[in-house]
Amino acid sequence: MSTYHPLSEAQAIEYARHIPQLFQPGSDLTSQEIGDGNLNLVFRISEGATGKSIILKQALPYAKVVGESWPLTLDRARIESEALIIEEGLVPDLVPHVYAYDADLALTVMEDLSDHVIMRRGLIEGNQYPLFAEHIGRFMANTLFFTSDLGKNQQEKKIQQGRFINPELCKITEDLIFDDPYRDAETNNIDAAIRDAAEQLWGDSELHFEVAILRNKFLTSAQALLHGDLHTGSIFIKPDSTKVIDPEFAYYGPMGFDIGAVLANLLLNFAAQEGWSKDDASRSAYRAYLTQTVKDVWTHFEENFRALWNEHGVDRVFAAPGYQDYFLLNLLRDTVGFTGAKMVRRVVGLAHVADIDKIEDAAARERAQRLALTIGTAAIRANRQVTSIDELIAIATRAAERGFVL
Amino acid sequence: MSTYHPLSEAQAIEYARHIPQLFQPGSDLTSQEIGDGNLNLVFRISEGATGKSIILKQALPYAKVVGESWPLTLDRARIESEALIIEEGLVPDLVPHVYAYDADLALTVMEDLSDHVIMRRGLIEGNQYPLFAEHIGRFMANTLFFTSDLGKNQQEKKIQQGRFINPELCKITEDLIFDDPYRDAETNNIDAAIRDAAEQLWGDSELHFEVAILRNKFLTSAQALLHGDLHTGSIFIKPDSTKVIDPEFAYYGPMGFDIGAVLANLLLNFAAQEGWSKDDASRSAYRAYLTQTVKDVWTHFEENFRALWNEHGVDRVFAAPGYQDYFLLNLLRDTVGFTGAKMVRRVVGLAHVADIDKIEDAAARERAQRLALTIGTAAIRANRQVTSIDELIAIATRAAERGFVL
Repeated sequence: MSTYHPLSEAQAIEYARHIPQLFQPGSDLTSQEIGDGNLNLVFRISEGATGKSIILKQALPYAKVVGESWPLTLDRARIESEALIIEEGLVPDLVPHVYAYDADLALTVMEDLSDHVIMRRGLIEGNQYPLFAEHIGRFMANTLFFTSDLGKNQQEKKIQQGRFINPELCKITEDLIFDDPYRDAETNNIDAAIRDAAEQLWGDSELHFEVAILRNKFLTSAQALLHGDLHTGSIFIKPDSTKVIDPEFAYYGPMGFDIGAVLANLLLNFAAQEGWSKDDASRSAYRAYLTQTVKDVWTHFEENFRALWNEHGVDRVFAAPGYQDYFLLNLLRDTVGFTGAKMVRRVVGLAHVADIDKIEDAAARERAQRLALTIGTAAIRANRQVTSIDELIAIATRAAERGFVL
Repeated sequence: MSTYHPLSEAQAIEYARHIPQLFQPGSDLTSQEIGDGNLNLVFRISEGATGKSIILKQALPYAKVVGESWPLTLDRARIESEALIIEEGLVPDLVPHVYAYDADLALTVMEDLSDHVIMRRGLIEGNQYPLFAEHIGRFMANTLFFTSDLGKNQQEKKIQQGRFINPELCKITEDLIFDDPYRDAETNNIDAAIRDAAEQLWGDSELHFEVAILRNKFLTSAQALLHGDLHTGSIFIKPDSTKVIDPEFAYYGPMGFDIGAVLANLLLNFAAQEGWSKDDASRSAYRAYLTQTVKDVWTHFEENFRALWNEHGVDRVFAAPGYQDYFLLNLLRDTVGFTGAKMVRRVVGLAHVADIDKIEDAAARERAQRLALTIGTAAIRANRQVTSIDELIAIATRAAERGFVL
């Protein structure tokens, strides 16, 4: 089994059988390939007698979304596994447990979270998750703080950074988020109905200037070990539990990129309520839930992050009066900028979100797309001036109330 | 010879003899250990018959400056050798040629530059180097541009960054430049005469705030492969030639740190003219030469850097209107901040500069120290607001004319 090959379901069962202390010897195991993803095989292996199950996730050497023509390093399985283990050390209740990692097969064996749902689906169904903001705020505060120069030995941080050089997956982000949406790129996926709005983006040099600044931060600002792809499709959730999965894009980057990913996906769903809400009242109510969640995510993040800094800060110099406030203000600004960039790419870039794309009514889908673009571009434009998370919420609320410009 | 041990002069000769195509077989070679440094052995091996000579530089596993108690990685020899080779590929006339690198012995064999002098000494002697600004501006523009996301394939840049994780030597900088001078640290080296000025630094929380921002940039801003220690003691010079040596501190960091190192050491010599100039007229004249050089270094750097960007920029997004100006303005600001930090550490930190310390007259030495501190702290305070290199020059000139506040 030591040479890489994509596993069949039968092989996945055989593999799982040999992991120590997991299943009963000789027990009846079944496997199901449940991956909907573009990059991996995902097997759920279940033991009939006990009901016990695990997930076996194997990286594919190419991206399925564009066929086998886009080869991808299998090293991302190592990155995912190591990132999960680091995260588990910091916030054990908020990630799946890793049972084993096999470098040769690019394979991670981890806790099955089938009792959770993918959060994107939960939001599309109109569910509310009152613990989510606390959970994800704590997840981000702990993972970002304790892998940064604020909370980790600074020499060990550099060595860890060297283990999370992730050129290929970073390039996907660099292209699909920080380049293609702002030009007529072949990879773009643009509904004919909003072609005019996309063309406006391509000609907007003020926007391009802000995107260049954000792109540069993504390329050079090695603040902390990011999840790197923290959208609502990377979050398993149920009312009392939140689990962050899939950190294969992990690398040392700007903290605001992770926070912005969470907020962007909440606001994409906010825009998508053009299609999902039954009436104006329920739309207003669900949007109020989402904007309150945006605020709570930031607030929980900030409170946790400041508390960690005050209690576990490793750097004497960073205790200079005013520096923590300065740092958090800049982080908020980065967050708003990345929120905007993450929204725009989900409307005109290669990979969309189900929140919007699954809206059947074409007019409502178009409204949702234009609203998402309006919020996203306004966030990008505002990012270096904002002083409060309320300003991001105001951008969204105003755009929904007054109509959208794109 | 494959296990590490510090070479004797006789062993250095034997080693040099076996490098292919360098010396005549059986020829008469002599060796001299000429290192004045803290971290390395430096042998000059000469061939009597031909006059041909080379330098054999071997890293020591500790820093001599504080005895053997400060162990240092031998991997820095690899970093130095690889950085020199990268630099030679970009600006072949501005670095010594590398003949060989031996990983086991942590040893680099390179071109002998004995016909040059160390620039710090040249400045102390009152020499002028009219080609220096063009040379060093071109050196920095090329090495910084072509190793950055502006001028290098961005995935290859990340991989190269992984080869230049340099935790131990970065820590020296983090401690000695961005921490110790701003507190009563044991490592500090403070003349009793300026104790009051040092104590002012320790209590100045506005200054500490700015230093925290600069420290954070040094820790997280992976813009380009820096030389990392680009003071006038790392530059060999003669009227028609400039050679940059000793890049063992090389790592991916903020570009302004290298440029600031050059400007700081020019301005340290500017301050040191309190002791070296024979009279007011010669002092004014030499200071005018130094400030003109500060301006020319920046100007040559900027012109070269912009030209490279316009001709060889690899990133479409960074061509956004206004972004190049924005980038250069921020780089100027970083440069001014790092200039200040580099000046302060050379007065109150562990490692001083001969420009000031070799002044025999105690009163003149004290004036030079206070002037350097005045310029350095003013540059740190001004860094995030400056819009022109002239403002840095004005800080220095005003401080020299109106007396100093520290």
